[in-house]
Amino acid sequence: MEFDSFFAEALDGLREAGNYRVFADLERHAGQFPRATRFREDGTSHDVTVWCSNDYLGMGQHPDVVRAMKEAIDRCGAGAGGTRNISGTNHSHVALEQELADLHGKESALIFTSGYVSNWAALGTLAAKIPGCIVYSDALNHASMIEGIRHSRAERRVWKHNSPEDLDRLMSADDPSRPKLVAFESVYSMDGDIAPIAEICDVAAKHGALTYLDEVHAVGLYGPRGGGIAEREGLMHRLDVIEGTLGKAFGVMGGYITGSRQLCDFVRSFASGFIFTTALPPALAAGATAAIRHLKASPVERQQHQERVARVRRLLDRRGIPHMDNPSHIVPVMVGNAAKCKWISDILLETYGIYVQPINYPTVPKGTERLRITPTPFHSDADIDHLVGALNDLWSHCALARAVA
Amino acid sequence: MEFDSFFAEALDGLREAGNYRVFADLERHAGQFPRATRFREDGTSHDVTVWCSNDYLGMGQHPDVVRAMKEAIDRCGAGAGGTRNISGTNHSHVALEQELADLHGKESALIFTSGYVSNWAALGTLAAKIPGCIVYSDALNHASMIEGIRHSRAERRVWKHNSPEDLDRLMSADDPSRPKLVAFESVYSMDGDIAPIAEICDVAAKHGALTYLDEVHAVGLYGPRGGGIAEREGLMHRLDVIEGTLGKAFGVMGGYITGSRQLCDFVRSFASGFIFTTALPPALAAGATAAIRHLKASPVERQQHQERVARVRRLLDRRGIPHMDNPSHIVPVMVGNAAKCKWISDILLETYGIYVQPINYPTVPKGTERLRITPTPFHSDADIDHLVGALNDLWSHCALARAVA
Repeated sequence: MEFDSFFAEALDGLREAGNYRVFADLERHAGQFPRATRFREDGTSHDVTVWCSNDYLGMGQHPDVVRAMKEAIDRCGAGAGGTRNISGTNHSHVALEQELADLHGKESALIFTSGYVSNWAALGTLAAKIPGCIVYSDALNHASMIEGIRHSRAERRVWKHNSPEDLDRLMSADDPSRPKLVAFESVYSMDGDIAPIAEICDVAAKHGALTYLDEVHAVGLYGPRGGGIAEREGLMHRLDVIEGTLGKAFGVMGGYITGSRQLCDFVRSFASGFIFTTALPPALAAGATAAIRHLKASPVERQQHQERVARVRRLLDRRGIPHMDNPSHIVPVMVGNAAKCKWISDILLETYGIYVQPINYPTVPKGTERLRITPTPFHSDADIDHLVGALNDLWSHCALARAVA
Repeated sequence: MEFDSFFAEALDGLREAGNYRVFADLERHAGQFPRATRFREDGTSHDVTVWCSNDYLGMGQHPDVVRAMKEAIDRCGAGAGGTRNISGTNHSHVALEQELADLHGKESALIFTSGYVSNWAALGTLAAKIPGCIVYSDALNHASMIEGIRHSRAERRVWKHNSPEDLDRLMSADDPSRPKLVAFESVYSMDGDIAPIAEICDVAAKHGALTYLDEVHAVGLYGPRGGGIAEREGLMHRLDVIEGTLGKAFGVMGGYITGSRQLCDFVRSFASGFIFTTALPPALAAGATAAIRHLKASPVERQQHQERVARVRRLLDRRGIPHMDNPSHIVPVMVGNAAKCKWISDILLETYGIYVQPINYPTVPKGTERLRITPTPFHSDADIDHLVGALNDLWSHCALARAVA
């Protein structure tokens, strides 16, 4: 086989379908978030405002986080130096796990090198090792959950997105004696909608199932201490596993699960993707701990965040720019056409200095192509005016449909 | 099902078999590597010398690495803020990928959040997407490669460890028209032996197979510029993929593949574990780049490393402490009994201040339990004398067999 020709053909296929990804080459400016320099392929560069970051609260530049990271580097060096078992456990990992367990009101926590790995390894291990386990997975679960469940080779049922009724229907059809695991998210990344956690927990409880909630787009952002949607709704105790990330609202990188001592110890002891990998650098653990501690005590960022989100929505409405109505901080501006979506984001970037990545198939279904806008506390009124003004210009230019007020 | 009881029973099973892992809680001391503080469960602490770190050259405390990381944090903040595609590509990622491609003499490189993910995602994607691909996997390949191959659901043949003859036998038995991929490592972590790369490439070439070499225990450590065993032996051009880590000799965290432009772009475009995960923090990319650049130009660390390894082996031989003979920097001191191995490492830690993790089943076969010792350029003559003296004491105490000179 001519491997390179095969690869080239597959890539041409992506290009023809408009799904070939070109990464924007950025340099974020600490202290001036959400500003960044964007480097073009020809070597020139220009300043942009980032409107699609998952550093939702700008904690990646928070003085406490920056200071904690630099202190940890000075004290402990660059990396962890090994797997958690072989010389890689640093005191800062232990402290972070305690902080996370406390955040979610759980006995224990376990950190991973990424949110992706935490889902993949935890679901992959639980579903594979619990004999006869059936996994019930929300239809819009993240790729990392799907891959973890697939990896486990457990039987899987996919329930209609955010539908406790469909979940109950599927669970009722299965053998009551089989162990069951219900996996879902709180805030869904692309539509920004929120799961009916209480109702899902009710169904899971009725069938004696383990509940696994991914809160990666909610931790730090919701709840009195930033524990997520489950904290806000007083439901943390009803979830066996709350999974989260250190790489979005907490501004650093890494993922985690929290749960009972036995459950976390079980995953710690059996998950290949946890055991056989170098531990997080102490500096990342220290930075994440600083971010979590700050956001536990300070509601200010969350309030400003919600206020900015509301303002963006209000001004979009005023101009009739259609955006998906949802109760979260994610503002999907709907374009509905892959080529137009890419074209608009290219013009926003080059002409207006606004960076917002187009979201096309397969990340979202065809016909629902969108600009996924994530306002932060650091986007000013002028930034918002500039964004909405630019979108208004392009909507007219492209003769795109307006929303009806 | 009573899930917590099930977890507890499984953990008890590990305890009874002597396979339950207790992590040593350490704080590495930057500037004094390989010294660390170890925290006991009762809250007390003591100083130890780490003898089992994979920060093989102590680059985790190198001034260039530490400086690059702190500068990147000051300039760009804590995290990347998104996936590579959605606002997460930082200029330092692009620079690191260029540095890595150059290191291995390849057109292109792609970085991942860990070496584990790089193997899992790259092998998982290549083997799944190349139609009809058969994967030939060395019997001692790392868990991350095994899981990647398993995840791909491609047909797999396991060839006898380091045996080009067995590989040829298996490949000859298969349909010549099927695409094939040969996956192996250069330095194997637990035995420290080195693959016959040229002979394996000969067999792969005979059968038209793609070659995939994991050099995680070799990059930075071997070859005139630290390109690994394949560089040392002038074989880099014969490997389609060279995979490596930023978390061992380069002292930071992360993994990568290098290869043709088309191959790297293919993995970049199709690997779920690459696409749907937050990018490495810019500081890690900057630190790794600094480490690679330093080790490309400086052979000093590699020479000192090999000299320290030779000295440890010489003094062990003088005392008749049995260690596995191999041509690498990994010194497996053989105990051959799980309980004794754990006991010895406990005494080394508590009485002698020497930290070396016992390596038991399932990481190594039963009956081959060992202390895996990794000397670094920063272990002094006195450190080595203290280690070998302690082992000599314990060998007498335990009445363990001595090696015959």
